[in-house]
Amino acid sequence: MQKPSIPKGTRDFSPEEMAKRNYIFDTIKEVYRLYGFRQIETPAMENLSTLMGKYGEEGDKLLFKILNSGDFLSSMHADDVTEGNSAKTANKISEKGLRYDLTVPFARYVVMHRNEISFPFKRFQIQPVWRADRPQKGRYREFFQCDADVVGSDSLLNEVELIQIIDEVFRRLNIRVSIKLNNRKILSGIAEIIGEADKITDITVAIDKLDKIGLEKVNEELLSKNISQEAIDKLQPIILLSGTNREKIATLKTILSASEIGLKGVEELEFILNKIDLLNIGCDLELDLTLARGLNYYTGAIIEVKALDVEIGSITGGGRYDNLTGIFGLPGVSGVGISFGADRIYDVLNQLNLFPENSTHATDILFVNFGDAEESYILPLLAQLRSKGICAELYPEAAKMKKQMSYANNNNIPFVALVGENEMKEGKITLKNMKTGEQKLVSGETIFESFLKE
Amino acid sequence: MQKPSIPKGTRDFSPEEMAKRNYIFDTIKEVYRLYGFRQIETPAMENLSTLMGKYGEEGDKLLFKILNSGDFLSSMHADDVTEGNSAKTANKISEKGLRYDLTVPFARYVVMHRNEISFPFKRFQIQPVWRADRPQKGRYREFFQCDADVVGSDSLLNEVELIQIIDEVFRRLNIRVSIKLNNRKILSGIAEIIGEADKITDITVAIDKLDKIGLEKVNEELLSKNISQEAIDKLQPIILLSGTNREKIATLKTILSASEIGLKGVEELEFILNKIDLLNIGCDLELDLTLARGLNYYTGAIIEVKALDVEIGSITGGGRYDNLTGIFGLPGVSGVGISFGADRIYDVLNQLNLFPENSTHATDILFVNFGDAEESYILPLLAQLRSKGICAELYPEAAKMKKQMSYANNNNIPFVALVGENEMKEGKITLKNMKTGEQKLVSGETIFESFLKE
Repeated sequence: MQKPSIPKGTRDFSPEEMAKRNYIFDTIKEVYRLYGFRQIETPAMENLSTLMGKYGEEGDKLLFKILNSGDFLSSMHADDVTEGNSAKTANKISEKGLRYDLTVPFARYVVMHRNEISFPFKRFQIQPVWRADRPQKGRYREFFQCDADVVGSDSLLNEVELIQIIDEVFRRLNIRVSIKLNNRKILSGIAEIIGEADKITDITVAIDKLDKIGLEKVNEELLSKNISQEAIDKLQPIILLSGTNREKIATLKTILSASEIGLKGVEELEFILNKIDLLNIGCDLELDLTLARGLNYYTGAIIEVKALDVEIGSITGGGRYDNLTGIFGLPGVSGVGISFGADRIYDVLNQLNLFPENSTHATDILFVNFGDAEESYILPLLAQLRSKGICAELYPEAAKMKKQMSYANNNNIPFVALVGENEMKEGKITLKNMKTGEQKLVSGETIFESFLKE
Repeated sequence: MQKPSIPKGTRDFSPEEMAKRNYIFDTIKEVYRLYGFRQIETPAMENLSTLMGKYGEEGDKLLFKILNSGDFLSSMHADDVTEGNSAKTANKISEKGLRYDLTVPFARYVVMHRNEISFPFKRFQIQPVWRADRPQKGRYREFFQCDADVVGSDSLLNEVELIQIIDEVFRRLNIRVSIKLNNRKILSGIAEIIGEADKITDITVAIDKLDKIGLEKVNEELLSKNISQEAIDKLQPIILLSGTNREKIATLKTILSASEIGLKGVEELEFILNKIDLLNIGCDLELDLTLARGLNYYTGAIIEVKALDVEIGSITGGGRYDNLTGIFGLPGVSGVGISFGADRIYDVLNQLNLFPENSTHATDILFVNFGDAEESYILPLLAQLRSKGICAELYPEAAKMKKQMSYANNNNIPFVALVGENEMKEGKITLKNMKTGEQKLVSGETIFESFLKE
């Protein structure tokens, strides 16, 4: 007999885990909706022609490919096997793959449905994605992404709203975070003025180490990356950039005064900060020049969120990217979006013990089963409770009391009702609070309900 | 430039479609929870060893198989290609497949997690499944199943509750349905007393035609299926079975008096009907001997639901099956479950125009954008509205009025707010009802809110 298992890197979610995950997803969805984002879903499978070449060579290798149904061997030659080029042969016998992220399917969606869409299009999408990565702690082959994007609008108000959304989601989840903000145009401006346009990544990586290794070592590292002494000299005020966001902006305006694109980036940043100042943002919002995620991808704002009370990578990220849909033949559509990292947020909430207590219990009350007569007495009562929105169960058989009580315990059910011969005669219910152990004889559903809502 | 498309048999879901689908899923989930069912999720990919052989030979062919990552060709021989046995070769280069239904993954889940589960285990699961079926109208290669099952309990109260759940879901959705009920043991009893145990399917198919073709033709058909005249004579009271459920049961008790299993089936049916009689069920519940779905699978109750006002196949089905987990090495676990057919329910609601109006609008109010000063004025106002749970948007740029209004129209936004120079001076808002065209000058968020809640 086979011992069942699941593919490595994938997970089952138990009722307790689902309740916690739903708490996160529901919070995110609710906030997305408050801001006018509308949900879409796309198929798990996309044509490989849609997916291939969109994630770099490494990404192509990480796509899960679906074997063509039926007689796929007829598309192969014996030579394919002897030649041994699996990647090439895969294309002959597979034309579909599992989606790798939500962005490319979204771009495909926008192009396919452009005549039905009223732009700007604010969509959110919460679905699993699959990557044939080597599984390791915190990295799975199936995981959920929670994306919101606005396409077809260049307005920086979209960036402002996305920051508000991040702030609101973490406020609701009770996670203290810092939102880091940068702008690709500022990085381009820096590269421009120091004449090292192709070294932007090396520069941001080095600057990021300032706190840890000090200025001298940072400069050494820059030199080791073949950045000229002259450029390093020009970089000093940027490496040492500090103070409030306003102070940083003032400094940047001076440093980047010769770079049109750099100044444009500063202007964008300033617009966003000005609007955010009008709002009651709870999070710390910090201009961080070392933020360079997805550098080849983003063209304007770059956003990243760090949890303050847990050592963990970024728990949300995003930014603006031009020409999202160009790859599918629809140029000139700009987009800006964010993505919440549900798995990491889950870990943060778990570690800080921040899941609300009631997120893990589903049933409010369990009726103990004493036998057929009691069942018939209880069934209509249950129906009444449920009609009032109370999740109620009757244990399905007259099992031993101990078994029924441990069912209540194991399923985290807060109240147990005992209705035996006496209770039926008196028209009452013995109600046990499973946490305190307290037992009460109560009468009628009204009292009952008030007890539950305590 | 490639013109993007999606794999045949799969679908994108637009915001409107998602809103309607969520209305269905949310209704089902809410009712499941009221009855103490708890959600789980399993991975999209299962090991092929888990899936193969569970759905018959035909089912094996309909599994979507995932090509092994990396150098899959090293597991093949050139001979495999010349031999041309794709099914056999697929097993060499593929070890994972997409789930075909939710039942087998659930059985696998129960066995894998049996030490964490407190039985009886009432779980629900709403996830997509994939089948490489030939796509046709109403049949997709990716579709959602909405299953609830109780495992580890033989009690017929579970059947009673599942019928209540069906009744409640369709009451909430406003779909008039008839619930058909049968019992596999009764069918076995019938086969037993007429001595034609292997012809049960032929018999139920023929009986089902009584209304259309009449008794004589039914008997002719039975004869043509090699059922003996003696057996057909014995079948007459069963073919002509009519009247109320109680009358049918009385007749069956007489006819099946010599069959132990048949009487057991009648007893089970009677138990269910007795308990349902104690409850205010809105649907018609009808004993239907022609109901034989999943005959080789179900061992007790068989349940099917038909919509009364639309010509469409069964929109929900279920039943009891013994030994669900036996295939994975855990014998003796009985289960009973139902599955709502979300796609068909969607079609029924659409055809009968039963989707609630507010299920398709997401945003309550759009603020027209007149420029930077107005933006700054409106942003804090928006934040206030959202904090009250009102979904509110500001058009992201000061586009032409016509464009902004058509955005509101296209997105089904019921109210538009105009805040220009005058309104800002007076601290008021011009509110337009998009349905009636009515415009009002209102002051303060309080009035505002009451207007929205009209």
